[in-house]
Amino acid sequence: MVNQVQRVDGSWLSCKSDSSGTSNSGGESSKESSRCSTPVLDAVRSDRLRDKMRRRMESGDQWFSLEFFPPRTASGAVNLISRFDRMGSGGPLFIDITWHPAGDPGSDKETSSMMIASTAVNYCGLESVLHLTCCNQTKEKITGHLAKAKHLGLKNIMALRGDPVGSDWEEEEGGFNYAVDLVKHIRSEFDDYFDVCVAGYPTGHPEAESYEDDLRHLKEKVDAGADFIITQLFFRADTFLTFVDDCRAIGVTCPILPGIFPIQGYQSLRQLVKLSKLEVPEEITRVIEPIKDNDAAIRNYGIHQAVEMCRVLLDSGKVPGLHFYTLNREVAPTEVLRQLGLWIEDPRRPLPWAVSAHPKRRVEDVRPIFWASRPKSYIYRTQDWDDFPNGRWGNSSSPAFGELNDYYLFYLKSKSSKEALLQMWGEELKREESVFEVFTCYITGQLNRNGHKVMCLPWNDEPLAPETNLLKDELEKVNRRGVLTINSQPNINGKPSTDAVVGWGPAGGYVFQKAYLEFFTSSENVNALLKVLKKYEPRVNYHIVNVHGRNLTNAHEMQPNAVTWGIFPGREIVQPTVVDPVSFMYWKDEAFALWIEQWAKLYEDESPSRMIIKYIHDNYFLVNLVDNDFPLKSCLWQVLDDMFELLDAPLETLADGMPGDGSHGDGSHDNGTLAE
Amino acid sequence: MVNQVQRVDGSWLSCKSDSSGTSNSGGESSKESSRCSTPVLDAVRSDRLRDKMRRRMESGDQWFSLEFFPPRTASGAVNLISRFDRMGSGGPLFIDITWHPAGDPGSDKETSSMMIASTAVNYCGLESVLHLTCCNQTKEKITGHLAKAKHLGLKNIMALRGDPVGSDWEEEEGGFNYAVDLVKHIRSEFDDYFDVCVAGYPTGHPEAESYEDDLRHLKEKVDAGADFIITQLFFRADTFLTFVDDCRAIGVTCPILPGIFPIQGYQSLRQLVKLSKLEVPEEITRVIEPIKDNDAAIRNYGIHQAVEMCRVLLDSGKVPGLHFYTLNREVAPTEVLRQLGLWIEDPRRPLPWAVSAHPKRRVEDVRPIFWASRPKSYIYRTQDWDDFPNGRWGNSSSPAFGELNDYYLFYLKSKSSKEALLQMWGEELKREESVFEVFTCYITGQLNRNGHKVMCLPWNDEPLAPETNLLKDELEKVNRRGVLTINSQPNINGKPSTDAVVGWGPAGGYVFQKAYLEFFTSSENVNALLKVLKKYEPRVNYHIVNVHGRNLTNAHEMQPNAVTWGIFPGREIVQPTVVDPVSFMYWKDEAFALWIEQWAKLYEDESPSRMIIKYIHDNYFLVNLVDNDFPLKSCLWQVLDDMFELLDAPLETLADGMPGDGSHGDGSHDNGTLAE
Repeated sequence: MVNQVQRVDGSWLSCKSDSSGTSNSGGESSKESSRCSTPVLDAVRSDRLRDKMRRRMESGDQWFSLEFFPPRTASGAVNLISRFDRMGSGGPLFIDITWHPAGDPGSDKETSSMMIASTAVNYCGLESVLHLTCCNQTKEKITGHLAKAKHLGLKNIMALRGDPVGSDWEEEEGGFNYAVDLVKHIRSEFDDYFDVCVAGYPTGHPEAESYEDDLRHLKEKVDAGADFIITQLFFRADTFLTFVDDCRAIGVTCPILPGIFPIQGYQSLRQLVKLSKLEVPEEITRVIEPIKDNDAAIRNYGIHQAVEMCRVLLDSGKVPGLHFYTLNREVAPTEVLRQLGLWIEDPRRPLPWAVSAHPKRRVEDVRPIFWASRPKSYIYRTQDWDDFPNGRWGNSSSPAFGELNDYYLFYLKSKSSKEALLQMWGEELKREESVFEVFTCYITGQLNRNGHKVMCLPWNDEPLAPETNLLKDELEKVNRRGVLTINSQPNINGKPSTDAVVGWGPAGGYVFQKAYLEFFTSSENVNALLKVLKKYEPRVNYHIVNVHGRNLTNAHEMQPNAVTWGIFPGREIVQPTVVDPVSFMYWKDEAFALWIEQWAKLYEDESPSRMIIKYIHDNYFLVNLVDNDFPLKSCLWQVLDDMFELLDAPLETLADGMPGDGSHGDGSHDNGTLAE
Repeated sequence: MVNQVQRVDGSWLSCKSDSSGTSNSGGESSKESSRCSTPVLDAVRSDRLRDKMRRRMESGDQWFSLEFFPPRTASGAVNLISRFDRMGSGGPLFIDITWHPAGDPGSDKETSSMMIASTAVNYCGLESVLHLTCCNQTKEKITGHLAKAKHLGLKNIMALRGDPVGSDWEEEEGGFNYAVDLVKHIRSEFDDYFDVCVAGYPTGHPEAESYEDDLRHLKEKVDAGADFIITQLFFRADTFLTFVDDCRAIGVTCPILPGIFPIQGYQSLRQLVKLSKLEVPEEITRVIEPIKDNDAAIRNYGIHQAVEMCRVLLDSGKVPGLHFYTLNREVAPTEVLRQLGLWIEDPRRPLPWAVSAHPKRRVEDVRPIFWASRPKSYIYRTQDWDDFPNGRWGNSSSPAFGELNDYYLFYLKSKSSKEALLQMWGEELKREESVFEVFTCYITGQLNRNGHKVMCLPWNDEPLAPETNLLKDELEKVNRRGVLTINSQPNINGKPSTDAVVGWGPAGGYVFQKAYLEFFTSSENVNALLKVLKKYEPRVNYHIVNVHGRNLTNAHEMQPNAVTWGIFPGREIVQPTVVDPVSFMYWKDEAFALWIEQWAKLYEDESPSRMIIKYIHDNYFLVNLVDNDFPLKSCLWQVLDDMFELLDAPLETLADGMPGDGSHGDGSHDNGTLAE
């Protein structure tokens, strides 16, 4: 394992394009001769956590961070990951994941600390700190954990002693298993690779001989190589501010982040007090005890109390950022941060898609548009790539997309239960039109005929994107007629990069898009569409393919079409999404398989409902359309109007040039209805 | 030599991005894993001449080609190269360079056939055919010539027997030295690398036993591997058309191009008749003899006669293209082509700069803007690069620009004589303002005070580009005040790619530019400029540097700024020019050296004129400015207005923050005037 680490280590040379120019062991290796800069994102992505902190302190820009503990169950993991996505959008500088020796925290289980932290980094794009305790573990075991963390793209460790008694806010020191020994071990085995955090105790560690003695231990941990300190929770701002002064007095100069615990319930507060051996001040118990059975009241008080305390801390000038013990809950921490003005309501997107925080993906700034609604699937399928496209997609003559063997990979799993899915998508399907209705309800937000809202589709596990809302009326119209849209974007001709809906990238730039539309539709429709598309040459590029790979296109067979790009001050052009013909063939397999894996399998074998989905899977085409003339009003809706007009015309005009496989479309099959 | 060839050969693997998908041994090697497609230009640049011919024939698109002979003198070479640039803009499918064994044609002399053809390919971007004769040469010598041609980027050979008696339109066959043996030799030693052309004789070769015998020899040459035929000149269309029919009858199927000789003078016609043993038809001599002393009349007749004959040929349906024996003259062939409608008046530019035709540069589609007016210098300085930027400039942390050791490299030499330069730039300079006047006259096209037009500057060997004309008034104003502009472009916000002035790339696209301005100016001006620029952060990026490398910038030290880009149907973004900070330091050396090498050295050592230029060289700064806000009216003129306003204000406001090296600028030195 150690050997493997060293090999990995050797390849993590600093990339010359790094903008900080200082220590950047987090940068992925690159050939000396290659041109590896990411035009827009270097400064954002390549930096170490400690550098980010330093810059934020220099600019007086206070931050927050969020602590989570690993879930107990697989469905808990799915929920936690989607919480990461939501809370990540508020702009935490980092999140951290606690380490519970009893829970097999270093394993590959979807609920392990290691895998949760890895998912946060790789799939949610969050700067993450993995806790690690050293008590009751061999050196080799610890080195193994660290090597694995590094391999998975983790760059920050919170070094703790740990405690035989489980607790979510750890304690430290004692025997060989002092936290300081773990810090030294990390520095001796992994040099400067990791940023290291250690714990501080504003009222002294409960096991320490004295407050002063505990301060000296903290100084030792920092001297051993820790980069910053997160404190145990406390209930009075003064407690923390005195602690900071005392730390500074003995020469501790690194950032010290106060651990904030918004009281969220009576029971959780009691459990906390028991574990941490902290005393709850009388002014708090006096308020809480009378309302101990009213959860909402206690939470409201907790929010109020935390906001008040945080305001004092932030105003002191001694607090660069706030660290929140979330207890994996969303409402209270979010509300506190909103009231403090630290929550970013409208996060600036560095790219139009969620950027992965794995250091080897730091230069990545181009992706095919097809996975826009399934970014985690894209990251999973490309996780073994050594190079990621930067600046351009280029000629992907052989992009090696990994297989999605298990559609139930936990971070791809639908957050909805089978029952909820059946309510949304129909307990029983009678005809193809039943499917059209599901798509239409998803687009419009209207309730379906059984009174349920369609919150997701197999290709979109989230409600409609704000951008797609721009196209709502048109999308509704075409879905009603069996043009089952799964991806779209409007054309954009130079909107400011700060635009709330379509903006991305640094301020001061301009973003552009070509109109894009992707949908499933019947071979009858495709037949008419192909006739119509002749009128739109060369303005519209199309790819039309069925599940068997039958492929109709007017695009170059290898060249990608850039459909999103941005122009920024002092940078090269960034073109983050492309329609790549080769990748489309891989996406096609995934997109068709979702009909079966996520929808048809909800129904009994051989049931009519399942047969309808299977019929669509077997016979429909997946179509994508690009309108190249981005400065003009998109013509894609006109293309579909023309198609419908042709379909509504007498049948003879459609007789020739059938693109289907010959098994149907001879006129005996009613348009859009499965023969029963 | 042969070994070396084989090594070279081994690296010329086909690039996967090639759009033709067929034989493309001309493609440069590329790592399997790299993404090497050129978004716009593959189809244009990577194809072989024979493929280009095939496609033009398939589309019925008739072409022309131009034959030149190598010059006798170095200044003749300079003139011929600029003729290539001019005549190349008319759109020849290819040019060819004759081979004269007596003139050391394979040497490195600037007048050799080899070097002229290489220059045409590499620096003028012209598809070129190098003639090669085999008589009186050893096999090894011939192989050496071919290997050298290949190494220089030449891809086409006209295989001839040659003749001990020199002539510009060769003869062939005899002994071992049959042209057919040369064709076989090329195919056996270089496989399919070269496209091979052979000569055909519409009236039979003068040394052949019979017309039929000569046809059989031609068939042998084609069977040995020739790709197409160019014929000896002739005076009647029927002669050629009968010859084509006879060739087809014996199974010669390749393209046969008629050799067109527009009669340009009485003497040249007589010499031709003598050398080629052709007979001039009586209907021609009857017209010419009476006007034999009137050159203009003969040339006009020649143009008329050639146009009439070419019309018959083109209308016959048997002629895919016309080959012109130009005798290195420009007027007559151009006029004939204009009248035939084959001359392209407004050539489509695949990129905003002249594309090199060397196969290893085929993917190149990004260059620094600095060499916009000196593309040959850029090509020369990057000739040793193995990889050329494609899609993005990227991070050029160590671009290895070759030295320009000899500013008199023949393709960089000014086309003007020293006398002409002195007339334009001043026999005697009295003060810095004399230099300002030279720049101003160049910009405005006005005569200088001695009545001469300033046609060029050391940084611009051509009259002002049409695009620069868009900025004429503003440029005049600032040059008058000592802002000595050497490069500029207006901002463009999405003009059609077919725009006559600023368009480039395939039709149906849109081109964009950021406003750019580059100039020399005094340290006094720079001092004021720096104050002004603070108001324009971050809209304007600047680099300001003096000859000693003192460098002031607000741009990222490594990241290029894309200043020209295009969006095209079905393609990735193309961004052909960038402001690259690293390259700018190399350009700076070249730009400052041109003051001395091309201007100061016109004057006597220690002369006041020379001292003035040397003073500017030593003390001025080279400045470039980019206005990033391309959709808005350029603010760069306002920046300079603000600078002038500040300079016109009382001196005290300028006292602090002097960027100069301290040797002046203390107020004792009058603004803009050299102390005498």
